Amino acid sequence: MDGAGKLLGLGVGPGDPELLTIKAARLLRGAQVVAWFAKSGKTGHARRIADGYLAPDAEELRFTYPYTTEFPKRSDEYRDAMAAFYDDAAERIAAALDDRRDVALLCEGDPLFYGSFMYMHDRLAARYAIEIVPGVTAMAACWSRAGLPMTRGDDCLSVLAGTLDEDTLARRLKSADAAVIMKVGRHLGKVRRALDRAGLSDRAVYVENGSTPDERIVRLPDMPTDDSPYFSLVLVPTGRATS
Amino acid sequence: MDGAGKLLGLGVGPGDPELLTIKAARLLRGAQVVAWFAKSGKTGHARRIADGYLAPDAEELRFTYPYTTEFPKRSDEYRDAMAAFYDDAAERIAAALDDRRDVALLCEGDPLFYGSFMYMHDRLAARYAIEIVPGVTAMAACWSRAGLPMTRGDDCLSVLAGTLDEDTLARRLKSADAAVIMKVGRHLGKVRRALDRAGLSDRAVYVENGSTPDERIVRLPDMPTDDSPYFSLVLVPTGRATS
Repeated sequence: MDGAGKLLGLGVGPGDPELLTIKAARLLRGAQVVAWFAKSGKTGHARRIADGYLAPDAEELRFTYPYTTEFPKRSDEYRDAMAAFYDDAAERIAAALDDRRDVALLCEGDPLFYGSFMYMHDRLAARYAIEIVPGVTAMAACWSRAGLPMTRGDDCLSVLAGTLDEDTLARRLKSADAAVIMKVGRHLGKVRRALDRAGLSDRAVYVENGSTPDERIVRLPDMPTDDSPYFSLVLVPTGRATS
Repeated sequence: MDGAGKLLGLGVGPGDPELLTIKAARLLRGAQVVAWFAKSGKTGHARRIADGYLAPDAEELRFTYPYTTEFPKRSDEYRDAMAAFYDDAAERIAAALDDRRDVALLCEGDPLFYGSFMYMHDRLAARYAIEIVPGVTAMAACWSRAGLPMTRGDDCLSVLAGTLDEDTLARRLKSADAAVIMKVGRHLGKVRRALDRAGLSDRAVYVENGSTPDERIVRLPDMPTDDSPYFSLVLVPTGRATS
């Protein structure tokens, strides 16, 4: 729309507020409207990271995910509820843009890497100007904190979701030079078994809440339980020796 | 060593100086010694990105890669020359650390993701304190600039090196949900053929010099030549539809 505001997709990084980019911080300080996704009853990870950067008079748009345990995942009901939720969020953003205000949408990590921002991009990119500011990913923060050289030379890095079934995980891990398993959470037991089958458990490192005060880093074989929070991942660095 | 300086591995991001993190900029401004790798005759990408952040009195340590076309890659001579080069760079850093000065080593993108920093980490981590600051990767900058939603839900991302042989590239691409091919440079013709064999050419986007004034973004099928610079990559976003 002519004269409409611009949608800013701002990567706010993995958790430490100092891991915002200078560009994201600048755009955030100037934003008239700041939007963010969060689970019901939670502050929202992206909103918490961005806390020190919002203009005092910024209007906030909170989008609270509808899903709880009501719908089995992958069901039609779940998909329909999520689509309706994203449709509604996009229309609330569009209303602000039509009102000639810029909207900064906060994205933990990087906006286009497993982020809800993508569902807004899908719905709004044809109608409005969008600027995307990349962010430091959770995986990069975690391997930095753990001090793990991940990929060298012509190594391949496989980024996998812990939500995959065990056979798929094991098969993909077997062909990986180096791997990151995201979205570990309550899937840690399965992730362990898949790593065992791929012969990679000895190289695996578990990280939860990377770059935050609650950070925990431990070799996966030394992790005593399968009880892990949502913000956890497993890193498998390259087995290639140094030059 | 007791009382020795600390080695800082600072990710300076993909090219735009505003894509440094606030943390990397802060540590860089305070660094007494700033080290960086560069090819012979070039300023060095990381050094150019960091230019506005160095303290006026910072001492600079430049490490110039020895390789040219003298050694065929993968030869013993090449490997030995690189190992000797990294040994020497590590000892020059160690001398400054022993002198109780902190050394900031500039790393384009992220330090532990295909970076020369890893070879310093390998040589120095047992002897000195090291702090690593993650950075925005070139791939994240490129997919942000191209506006490509890369991975959704339980998609896998495969990060591949364009230096791999065509059969390996084609095989890995066939099993990828989404992919990034790094280090494209003079391998673009081979990368095109591998993408064709995997049936992914229509989704592929070519980006060179992402986030810099020389940026070029084009659908790979519309890229008229195979003449591409070192800082180029190919993105294959997920084929999964939106929710």
